[in-house]
Amino acid sequence: MRKLLVIGIGAGNPDHMTVQAVDGLNRADVLFIPDKGARKSDLAELRRHICDRFVTNPNSRRVEFDVPVRAEPAPSYRSTVDDWHEAIAAIYESLICDELSQDGCGAFLIWGDPSLYDSALRILERVRMRGNVAFELEVIPGITAVQALAASHKMALNRIGDAVQITTGRRLTEEGLPDNAGSTVVMLDGKCAFSTLDDNDLLIHWGAYLGTPDEILISGRLGDVGDEIVRTRDEARRKKGWIMDTYLLRKPGEPEE
Amino acid sequence: MRKLLVIGIGAGNPDHMTVQAVDGLNRADVLFIPDKGARKSDLAELRRHICDRFVTNPNSRRVEFDVPVRAEPAPSYRSTVDDWHEAIAAIYESLICDELSQDGCGAFLIWGDPSLYDSALRILERVRMRGNVAFELEVIPGITAVQALAASHKMALNRIGDAVQITTGRRLTEEGLPDNAGSTVVMLDGKCAFSTLDDNDLLIHWGAYLGTPDEILISGRLGDVGDEIVRTRDEARRKKGWIMDTYLLRKPGEPEE
Repeated sequence: MRKLLVIGIGAGNPDHMTVQAVDGLNRADVLFIPDKGARKSDLAELRRHICDRFVTNPNSRRVEFDVPVRAEPAPSYRSTVDDWHEAIAAIYESLICDELSQDGCGAFLIWGDPSLYDSALRILERVRMRGNVAFELEVIPGITAVQALAASHKMALNRIGDAVQITTGRRLTEEGLPDNAGSTVVMLDGKCAFSTLDDNDLLIHWGAYLGTPDEILISGRLGDVGDEIVRTRDEARRKKGWIMDTYLLRKPGEPEE
Repeated sequence: MRKLLVIGIGAGNPDHMTVQAVDGLNRADVLFIPDKGARKSDLAELRRHICDRFVTNPNSRRVEFDVPVRAEPAPSYRSTVDDWHEAIAAIYESLICDELSQDGCGAFLIWGDPSLYDSALRILERVRMRGNVAFELEVIPGITAVQALAASHKMALNRIGDAVQITTGRRLTEEGLPDNAGSTVVMLDGKCAFSTLDDNDLLIHWGAYLGTPDEILISGRLGDVGDEIVRTRDEARRKKGWIMDTYLLRKPGEPEE
C-alpha cells in the first residue's frame, strides 16, 4: 500500500526540524511541494532550502503543484472552506495516484505542525473517503509559531494552573477575549483583531517572521503598543510582500508578569 | 555573562529533538539534570539516553540535582506552587553560581516545550529577581505531548475555524468543558477528570506514553470508552510505576468526525 507522511517542518527556522522530520523527508520517494512556480516567494524558497539541507536520499524526487486560491469566506466560512478542500482533495488524489508507485512513500511538508490550523489531514481524509486510492498515513509533529512566539518572548504560554486558548483573529473579533483562559493566542489574523478589543490594559506579546532572521517582537500594554504593532506589521508586509504573525493576549496582574 | 539555555526535548520520543535543541545541548558546558539518583526512573533514563545520543561536545559535564517534592495543593494552589518554586529557585541559583564559570553556558532540559505547563522559565525569573547572579536566557521550543497526541491520532487539534483550549484536569473538574472552544486538550490530569463530565456523547482521544514504544491510544464516545481509559490507565500506571497521559475532548457532529 502507498504510504503518506505528513511532516511538520517548523515555523520558519530550519533548525526547528526534528530528527523524526528529517528521517521522514528521507524515507519519502516523493516530496510534494505546493506553490508550483512560486520561485520568488520567500516561503517557497525556505521550503526548498529545508529540502536541500536535510534530504540526503538520492532517490527522492520533488513534485511541485499548484494550490487553488480560496474564495473569500462569505457568507458561510465553513462552506467556502468545504469547496476549497474538495478542490485540493482532487489534486492530492491525482498526485498520489500518478506520482507514487503502489508501495511508494510520499511526504507533504507542512509549516508549523499538521495538527494546528492546517488542512492537510482533513484533505487527505477526504481523499480516503473518495475511495479511489488507499494509503497508510503517518503524522510527524513540528514546532508551531505559537511555540516560537513563546520561546522568542522567553515566556510561558500559560499562567500558573490556568488554561490557554488558541483561537483565530475572526473569532477574537466576533467573540472578544475568552473569559475562561488566562492566556489567549491568536492565529490566522490578517486584520489585527486585537484592535477591536477595548481593554487597553491587556498585555500583548506579538511576533512576526518568528524564528527567522527577520523576526520582529513587540510586547507591552495593548494601549501603549497596539498602534505600533499595526504600523510595524503594515510596513513589514508591504516591504516583504507577505507577513506571518501571531500573538498572545492576557490580562495583567500576576506576579510573574 | 553566564548564559542559560532552556531546551524543550520533546514528549518522550528522542526523535522529537530538533536541530536547534541538539545544537543547544552541544553549546552547553554544563547540562543540568534533575532527579539526582533516580537511576531506576524511566524518565531519568530517557533523559540520559537523549544526552548520550545527541551530546558530542567532549567538554560538557552533567550535573544532577535533587528537586524538592511539591506539597499537596491545598487550600491555595498558587501559594503552594509559590513556596515550591522559591525552593527550586534557590537550588537553581546555587547551580548557576557554583557550576558555571562567569562566561559559562548551562542547559536545562525540559520535557515537552518550556512554554507549556513547565515552571523552569518562571523559576529562572525568580532567580533573576533575587539579584545574586546575572545571566542571559535563551529558550528553545520542543514538541509537546499535545502535538504527539494529535500526531498519533492522526487528527487536527482544531475543528475548522474553531478555537482550541488547553487546560488542566483540575480546571476541567471545577469548570466543566469550555463552551467557547471546539476542542479541549487536558493536561496535568492525575484523576481522569473526564469522568466528572456528564455528556456521554463527547468524543475523547486519549494517549499515554506518547511517542514511546509503550504508547497507548484509545478514542471514541466518552460513554463507550471512558471506563476503559480509567481501567487501562490504572493498570499501566501500576505496572510501570508512573504514567504521563493527555487527551482531547470535543462535541460530536462535524463532518470530519
